[in-house]
Formats: sequence, structure tokens, C-alpha cells
Amino acid sequence: MKSQKQSTVAAVATPHGEGGIAVIRISGTDALSISSAVYRGAETLEHAEERRAVYGRIVHKGRFIDEVIITVFRAPRSYTGEDTVEISCHGSPYIASLVLQSLVENGAVPAGPGEFTKRAFLNGKIDLAQAEAVADLIKARTESARRVAGMQVSGYLSKYIDEMRTAIIQASALLELELDFSEQDIEFVSRDEIKQNLLDIKSKLKRLVESYNRGRVCREGIRMAITGLPNVGKSSVLNGLMERERAIVTHIPGTTRDTIEDVLDIEGIKVRITDTAGIRRSDDPVEQQGVMRAKKAVHEADVVLLVLDGSRPVSSDTVNLISWVRESAKDIVCILNKADLEQQTTQEEMATLLPDKEVWSVSAIEDQGMRTLIKVITSHALKRGLPDGQELLITRERHRDAVAKALERVDHAVLSIDRDMSQEFIALDMRGAADALGAIMGTVSPDDVLNKIFADFCIGK
Amino acid sequence: MKSQKQSTVAAVATPHGEGGIAVIRISGTDALSISSAVYRGAETLEHAEERRAVYGRIVHKGRFIDEVIITVFRAPRSYTGEDTVEISCHGSPYIASLVLQSLVENGAVPAGPGEFTKRAFLNGKIDLAQAEAVADLIKARTESARRVAGMQVSGYLSKYIDEMRTAIIQASALLELELDFSEQDIEFVSRDEIKQNLLDIKSKLKRLVESYNRGRVCREGIRMAITGLPNVGKSSVLNGLMERERAIVTHIPGTTRDTIEDVLDIEGIKVRITDTAGIRRSDDPVEQQGVMRAKKAVHEADVVLLVLDGSRPVSSDTVNLISWVRESAKDIVCILNKADLEQQTTQEEMATLLPDKEVWSVSAIEDQGMRTLIKVITSHALKRGLPDGQELLITRERHRDAVAKALERVDHAVLSIDRDMSQEFIALDMRGAADALGAIMGTVSPDDVLNKIFADFCIGK
Repeated sequence: MKSQKQSTVAAVATPHGEGGIAVIRISGTDALSISSAVYRGAETLEHAEERRAVYGRIVHKGRFIDEVIITVFRAPRSYTGEDTVEISCHGSPYIASLVLQSLVENGAVPAGPGEFTKRAFLNGKIDLAQAEAVADLIKARTESARRVAGMQVSGYLSKYIDEMRTAIIQASALLELELDFSEQDIEFVSRDEIKQNLLDIKSKLKRLVESYNRGRVCREGIRMAITGLPNVGKSSVLNGLMERERAIVTHIPGTTRDTIEDVLDIEGIKVRITDTAGIRRSDDPVEQQGVMRAKKAVHEADVVLLVLDGSRPVSSDTVNLISWVRESAKDIVCILNKADLEQQTTQEEMATLLPDKEVWSVSAIEDQGMRTLIKVITSHALKRGLPDGQELLITRERHRDAVAKALERVDHAVLSIDRDMSQEFIALDMRGAADALGAIMGTVSPDDVLNKIFADFCIGK
Repeated sequence: MKSQKQSTVAAVATPHGEGGIAVIRISGTDALSISSAVYRGAETLEHAEERRAVYGRIVHKGRFIDEVIITVFRAPRSYTGEDTVEISCHGSPYIASLVLQSLVENGAVPAGPGEFTKRAFLNGKIDLAQAEAVADLIKARTESARRVAGMQVSGYLSKYIDEMRTAIIQASALLELELDFSEQDIEFVSRDEIKQNLLDIKSKLKRLVESYNRGRVCREGIRMAITGLPNVGKSSVLNGLMERERAIVTHIPGTTRDTIEDVLDIEGIKVRITDTAGIRRSDDPVEQQGVMRAKKAVHEADVVLLVLDGSRPVSSDTVNLISWVRESAKDIVCILNKADLEQQTTQEEMATLLPDKEVWSVSAIEDQGMRTLIKVITSHALKRGLPDGQELLITRERHRDAVAKALERVDHAVLSIDRDMSQEFIALDMRGAADALGAIMGTVSPDDVLNKIFADFCIGK
């Protein structure tokens, strides 16, 4: 896989739009010759000193395109591990596209999403977990997401996992060696020692599997649905939260759901808020659909913010709603809104309706209690886990599944030792565990797994 | 102005958004020490080899932010002419903002729009006309806009103007010298020779002033308004044009007008299309306002595309509309739409109503005649001038005014020579002409002129 001849790829590496500069990146065996074909400067690129920024002009088919700064990175001392050239031109999307086009017309292939990072992986510059984390790092919008992705890009997670994998492989190699000498009944390594090692690894793997919930929160944030009857002030509550906290992106059309999401950065954690339609019985098919979506959002949410109107007495609709939310939601924060008006609903009534939940009085419009509400939401986010900054976390389902599989095989190996089974059974499970861990770093990765992973990237990385 | 101690500024130089990389630029006397404060790498930045890309990490207040590639450009061999450091990090707006923040917290000032280019100008790296063209180049969306801005950035226009300016100054210096020897009545330079030089310069200046119309079209494009009675198919015509030609940006809310613009790239020229409301008499104040805006758009347009419905007979509304458009518009292209239906309006009738205009039959819906229509629009754009690729053009009002002023002074100097006036009068006009030309390159530029020019830039350039 690593030795196959790759085409030379090029892409605009900077985001689309107007700016001071744009950077076009070209990587592969022909990167230097293709760049040279369009480069005019004092020095020739092919003999250019590596990593040195030189001034030049891009000229294609006799047409002057732009003045640029070019930096050559020679294999293997580049991001991809291949010869790479970075061309920094004026930050116009039109000019960047012309520079890219000139490279393509000289033989470069437009890079697919994540192509450069994929090559870095294929050329052994980084492992697969690091490559995946690059995409996470670029998409990071909060401190927790950046931190956990940054640690993974730097290879801390990979190193941790690889140490376990190496220990397993070494022990299993000794067991396999015993097999070769099986007639002599030699024990190269004591079963107790292997068992103790495996138990250590088992507890580490277990912690990793358990870290996934926190890791997922760091990477993806938590989903919060705001729900309530019509006219209880859901939108005011949402606006109040948006004003107090840093809203990252407002009104992203949901990709998987048909709802609108607002995203808040609360204490470094991304909180993705879905404002649901007021839930009530309806014969109108359009409204019914809205209610369906609202119910789905509540069901999928990590936390449901249930908004009631404290200035109105508890109605049967309210009782029905509460009972439905209690059935559907994983975690509930309840607020009595409109605390600035005379209250018709008491905390006592709420204690009966929601006996095991705290209920908070707020006035979104008068900005009363909103700071407390944010603290409450934060505590729910934190309960789901903010890492301490050093903790190694699993953030991807793929990794969790692999670790869980390794855990299972290690468990089985320990059982085989306890049952005094022969080496081959123990070794087989250990090899299985090592392979599962290896898949995280991509030591063995079928093409379809790779394609799926890199399709998630932006072009130009 | 050039010697004043400037603060050290920093900004994200790449467009906002997700991408492979983002670049943060810092420039000024403290650029190296400020970058060093957050940089961790094998080498120290302050002694780093210039223009050499080095790997490192950004760490601020004990917090690891990102792995980066840093390139140091030492004064005066940088874009700004000052010490400059470029930090290339992962292409996440969040990470880029953290890197910027770490620099700011160490003493850098966030750069204003065009700050880096302004410094390049103040430090004598480029002249003012080149600086202005940088902004044009970044905003260029069509071939003609890019080409004309590119030539100006490279300094061709400045060189051309400066040669005239130098010639004028040299001749006027000789005249002034004569003044010092006025008692001896010496003529250092013949009046005929000066006159001939001034006449040469005059014709060059005249061509430059005249080039402004073509230059403006290159830089800003032409404005086209589509107008017609309701239900004649204006939107279909617009959609037909958009489908055939490369639409650059659709639906930009007009900045100065209350209308929606579509922008097409027709043969390398930007055509900004305003789709106006159907024009008819109305008592509804909202509709009246729409009609007002439509009339304004027609009045301001370089070309008006008048759409009539060929499948209906000419009504009195049509006659009124045509007569009004003829009065208001500079240039008219008329089409009879719905050519796929039975025609009730003949070319003969149109020849009476619009005697000096060509009328084209099209069916936007059936895509009949649309190719011809684009050719017609193109010819109207080209009539307003596409430069031949080498021609030097004036693209800014500021430049045109300066050249026009120089032209006036040169003219006056010639007149003084013809009238045999004394040296001081001739020299005064020549100095005035030279100053006017000098203002284009910014040899003398009041602060408010500079501020106005650089406010037009994006941040990070």
C-alpha cells in the first residue's frame, strides 16, 4: 500500500473567500516539475533550497497570473512525506483557482477531501488516529474539542494504545515460541505474569471505553432540546441564552433532522440546541409533522430543557407534556418561565409533578435567573464530562468499537489462562486484541475504511 | 511619516472558515520577540534563518494551542518592509483566533483593514497606486478585473506615470534654474523643446483619462437592469442568462440600492444585473416604492435589457414603458420574449417604437435565441471596452481626477509658452502637473486620503 505510485495532487489549502493570502498546495513525485512549469523567479524551483520562501511569478500559457511566495518541502520532510510545494498568492478565490488550474493543466490532479492527510498516513508520517484527529481539530469550535483533538493529533492517544498493543504482541510472541518447543514443555513466560499484564491492560481498556461518553461530548458537544407548550416563552429563553453565552453558529439547518440548531459554547463545551415546535395535539397534518419532529428531537437530546409558564396554572396539557417528556427524555432541566409576572404555578406543585427534578424560576425577558440556568446547563454538560486536560479520551465510535473488541479478546485470554488452556488459544485471543488496537492506528486498514474516514475532510488538507 | 515608530500588528491573513491551513501574520519591530514568546521549537525564532519554514508549537500561558510552521521575514525583505512572521496553523477559525489572541496578549495590536499593505506603502515597498491595486486584485472576480489590477500591482501604471512626472520635473527644474540666472537672460532649455515634451505628455494623459471608462468596466463591471411590464418573463430571461453563463455571485443585496443583484461573468467582464419590479402605475404605496427603485436602477444602469412579451399585442402600457425607458436609459437592448408562442407583436411595430434599436426575439423558457442575446450583451460590454491585455488603464476615480488635473496644468503650461510668459508661470503649472501625478503614487498624501484608501481593504492584508 505504501509503495504504490501516487499521482501528484493539488488543491487550495486555505478557506474559500477573500483574504490577505491564499495558499495552493501540490504534493507528489511531480510536484516540483509541475510547479516549475508555471513558476518564474530568480532561482529554479527544482534546485531550490528546501523550506525556503522564495518570491516569484506564476505564468501559464504566456499569461501572468500573480506574484507569489513559494516554499518547497522535499520528501520525506513534508506534511505528506512526498515532495510538496506551497504557493502563497493574493487572497482572491479567483486567482487561487487560476493558480490551481495552471497546475492541473500541467499534470496535477485536483486533490480529494483529506487527500494530503491520507498521503501523510500512507507514507507513515502519521497514524490513522492522528489523521482522523486532524479533521476534528479543523472542525473544533470549542476549547474541549480543540484540546482533545490536539492531543490526538500530537499522537498521545496512539502512543498510549500502541504501548498496550506492543506489550500484548511481545507476550503473545513468547507464547507462540513455546509452541515451537511444545514437545519440550518449556514455559518462556509465566502464566501469572501474562495474566497480570493482561489484567492491567484490561483495566486501561475499560477506562478508555468509558471515556467515550466524555470524548463524544468534547468532539460533538451535547444535544439539548428546548420544549414546552406554545407561548411559554421558549424562544425568549433561547435568545436569553444566546445573548449571555458565545453563540458559535446560529441557525444551522440540521443535516439529519429537519430542525434548526443553535450552537452555544458553554464553558468550552458545544451545546447544540434544538428549539422544538410547541407540542400539542393537532389535526393539521403540517402541525402534526412539526410535533413529530419535536418529539424526535426530545428523544435524541442528551438534555431536555422543559419550559413551563409560571404565570399560568398547571393545565392538563402541561401534565400530559411533563409525563411524556419524563418518558422520552434522558435528562431533564425544568424551568418556570415568566417569573416577572404573578406566579400561578408553585414549586410545590412542580415537586409533585417532577418529584426527582429541580425546577428553576426564570424570566427570560427580564433576564432573571438566566445566569443560574446557564450554570445548571453547564453542570449537566460537565456531568457528561469535561476532561481534565490531560486525560486521554476516545472520541470516535470506530475507536470505541475497536477498544471494546480488544477488551473482549483480552478478557477471553485471561479466562483461557485461568482454565489452563494451551498456548495457542491464549495467543490467538491476544493477537486478536492486538489487531483490534492496531486498527485504531491503521496498521491494517481496508480501503473502504480509509475512504470513509477521509471523505469527512475538507479539500486542501 | 516613514520614520515614525509603528506598533506591531497581527491578523489572520487567510479567509475565515475551515480549510487545510490558516496563516496568522505579525509585522513590526517586535514581531520576532512577540512570536518567540509563544513559540516552542528546536530553534529560537530570534536567531532563525530568514524565509525558512520551521516546525514548532504555539504554547500560551502553559496551554498548548497548535502545531505550526513558522516563517520569519526580516526587515526590509518582507511584504511590509518590517520584521514579519507568518504562522501557518491548522485551518480552523477557532485555532487561528487563539493563535492571534496569544500574540495580542503578548503585545501585538490587532491589524486594521489593509494595515500590512499600508505599512508596505509607508515603508516605501510599494507606491500608493500599487497598494490600491492590491485590494482590487483580491476582489477581482473576472479575467479583465484581475488583469488590470495585476498590471497595476506589478507597478506598470506607476512606472508609466512616474516617467511623465520625472520628465516634467526635470524640465521645470531647468526653467527654475533659469530664474536664478534671470539677470543674465540665459535659456537652459528651448521653449520649443519643452512645448513638444508637454504636448507628448498631454496626449498620453488624454489617453489615460479616456481609458477610465474601460478601466472602470474592468474593475467594477457594467450595470445592467432588466425591466419590463409584469408577466413578460423577466425572471425567466435572467435565469436563462444565469444558466448559460458563469454566475459569480447570486443575490447580493445591493449596498447602495435596495435591490437584488445577480452577477454574471460574460467574456471576462462582470455584468451586474438588477432585476427590477414590473413597472406600472399603481396607487399601492409599497408597489410605488418598488417602481421608484426600478426606475432608479434603469437610470443608473449602463445597459437596460427591455423585455417585452411578443405573444401579446402592444398595449398602451408597453408604449408608455418604451417611451420612458428611451428617456431614462443610456443604452438599450430590447427583446421580444415568448417567441415559442404565436407572436402578436411584429418586428415592424417594434421598428416604429424603437427606430434606432435592434430588437431580438427569444424564448427564455425554450432557450431560443439566448445565445444570441448573450452575444449582444457581450458586444455592449465590449463596446464599453475590454482592454487588449497590454493597455494601461485608469480604474479609479481618484486617479482619473489626478490625471485630469495634471492634464489641465500641462495644457495651461503650453498656453503660457505660446504666450511667451516668463519661466515662473510655466514652471508653476508644470510643478502642479507633477504634484497631481505624484499624488497617484502617494508621493504626497494627506492622512485622510490614506485612511480612506485602506479602509476599503480586508483585514489581514
